[in-house]
Amino acid sequence: MSEPLFERLALIGIGLIGSSLALNARTNGLARHIAIATRRKETLDKAEELGLGDSYHLEASEAVADADFVILCVPVGSCGAITREIAPHLKAGAIVSDVGSVKGAVIAQMAPHLPSSVHFVPAHPLAGTEQSGPQAGFLELFTNRWSILTPPEGTDPAAVTRVEAFWQGCGSNVETMTAEHHDLVLAIVSHVPHLIAYNIVGTAADLETVTQSEVVKFSASGFRDFTRIAASDPTMWRDVFLTNRDAVLEMLARFSEDLATLQRAIRWGDGDTLFDLFTRTRAIRRNVIEAGQDTAKPNFGREPASGERAGTKG
Amino acid sequence: MSEPLFERLALIGIGLIGSSLALNARTNGLARHIAIATRRKETLDKAEELGLGDSYHLEASEAVADADFVILCVPVGSCGAITREIAPHLKAGAIVSDVGSVKGAVIAQMAPHLPSSVHFVPAHPLAGTEQSGPQAGFLELFTNRWSILTPPEGTDPAAVTRVEAFWQGCGSNVETMTAEHHDLVLAIVSHVPHLIAYNIVGTAADLETVTQSEVVKFSASGFRDFTRIAASDPTMWRDVFLTNRDAVLEMLARFSEDLATLQRAIRWGDGDTLFDLFTRTRAIRRNVIEAGQDTAKPNFGREPASGERAGTKG
Repeated sequence: MSEPLFERLALIGIGLIGSSLALNARTNGLARHIAIATRRKETLDKAEELGLGDSYHLEASEAVADADFVILCVPVGSCGAITREIAPHLKAGAIVSDVGSVKGAVIAQMAPHLPSSVHFVPAHPLAGTEQSGPQAGFLELFTNRWSILTPPEGTDPAAVTRVEAFWQGCGSNVETMTAEHHDLVLAIVSHVPHLIAYNIVGTAADLETVTQSEVVKFSASGFRDFTRIAASDPTMWRDVFLTNRDAVLEMLARFSEDLATLQRAIRWGDGDTLFDLFTRTRAIRRNVIEAGQDTAKPNFGREPASGERAGTKG
Repeated sequence: MSEPLFERLALIGIGLIGSSLALNARTNGLARHIAIATRRKETLDKAEELGLGDSYHLEASEAVADADFVILCVPVGSCGAITREIAPHLKAGAIVSDVGSVKGAVIAQMAPHLPSSVHFVPAHPLAGTEQSGPQAGFLELFTNRWSILTPPEGTDPAAVTRVEAFWQGCGSNVETMTAEHHDLVLAIVSHVPHLIAYNIVGTAADLETVTQSEVVKFSASGFRDFTRIAASDPTMWRDVFLTNRDAVLEMLARFSEDLATLQRAIRWGDGDTLFDLFTRTRAIRRNVIEAGQDTAKPNFGREPASGERAGTKG
């Protein structure tokens, strides 16, 4: 194996992203030593049981000591407090990064605490599943996905290059942009989609004219897709909406405006407006598949249901 | 093989549902003769090439002659005209059914044309993919899914039982309810989810601050799920919204009301409201999986992306 990119990688937080990074760092030889820190004893024990790291710490400050690469893999709302905690223990020349889904707020929370002797390269891998915890991670999570780096102006280009190499080593494509643009992009491709998925699942659960059991039973007609996204980690997503407020509200306003137009088309029987949109959106699906960002298989390639019946009822 | 349920099954329309029914009727011995009718020569040729039926007709009236079971597998907006066309050719005692996603409007369009000598048993299989056309069908489409029958009051129970047996023969569970209740249920589990998926994809495509290429590239962060649903057949879905107007508008109003509450929670930093909803929706996902209506695998069991890169860019 060639020399690893980093001597000591400290992963603060070991959920879906942290554990997938640990697997990549190990398998792809990206770090000589993987130090894992998490506040919850059960989670740390689980990570150790899975053999994800080389050392395990309840204190983040212990894990970062002597690390040349530190990645915060925690909900964005926790980044500020953890940075304050680890700051005095960071090695000079270390690179500090994160994986948060919001970049402006995370930078605002982290940067003030960081000593000038370290390099700050915020990052966000656009990958995930609806599952969470150290057992949810897997090696291929980042393969052919995109990671976005948002280094503040004046960041050492050599540090940015090393972080880029790390993400490429995890199989990811890398793009660099401003934090502000990142937050706008993510609001529309991720945050608002999650919000409306959570919302429709909530709406369906609260009806008095249709029972929750009917909603569940008949969910294969569309609804079930939304329940997957709406099963995503509640803490992580609460923090996303609280910290990317302005961009989310802006995109949500556009979504609602467009939805009102569709609502009006339905009310007045304007089939052409509906048909035109439905044709246009079909083309975008084709682009997503051509870009390698989703499978071309029908129904995401879900396996057909097994033959056993849920029971029949006249 | 035991006696087939029907002597001659006429499928009017041979898209995703029609072709999947043809495969089931053949494989599971549900009909002795499968007559396929569709107005478009290319589609009919395709169906013949795939060997889906026993006879092929450009005229629906030809296909239904002597059939004891006729199923309209066309967009709901076409059901009325086709029924008027085939009515004089229906055999006495025949059962006429459909597969439309809206039942009230379909019954209103079909029933007035049907002679009293035939049995009308409207049906709706809650199954599908985003693909359409005779080549899209497959045998397992209905396995462990639900089909809903909405026989008008006074329908011969023996005819209902035979239609139920047909759908069970396709692997489906069967439930019976009123057309009115069906349309409410479908509005929330299928129609509004499709509408908001179409809508978010449209909103994302129309932004000036985020390019369409960014939306496509970064779609794995949530958006791509919506593009699948928004790739569904435009004609079919236009007709659904035009014909289930009242129930869709009612459910849409509730969705928008709930979304406004979330919007307010985001604006005012009310994390508890968000967290509570996000926890509640997670439980509903578990129910969907337990009911056998979706896979428990992360990301719907999508295969991980292949190792080839879409290209990197600093």
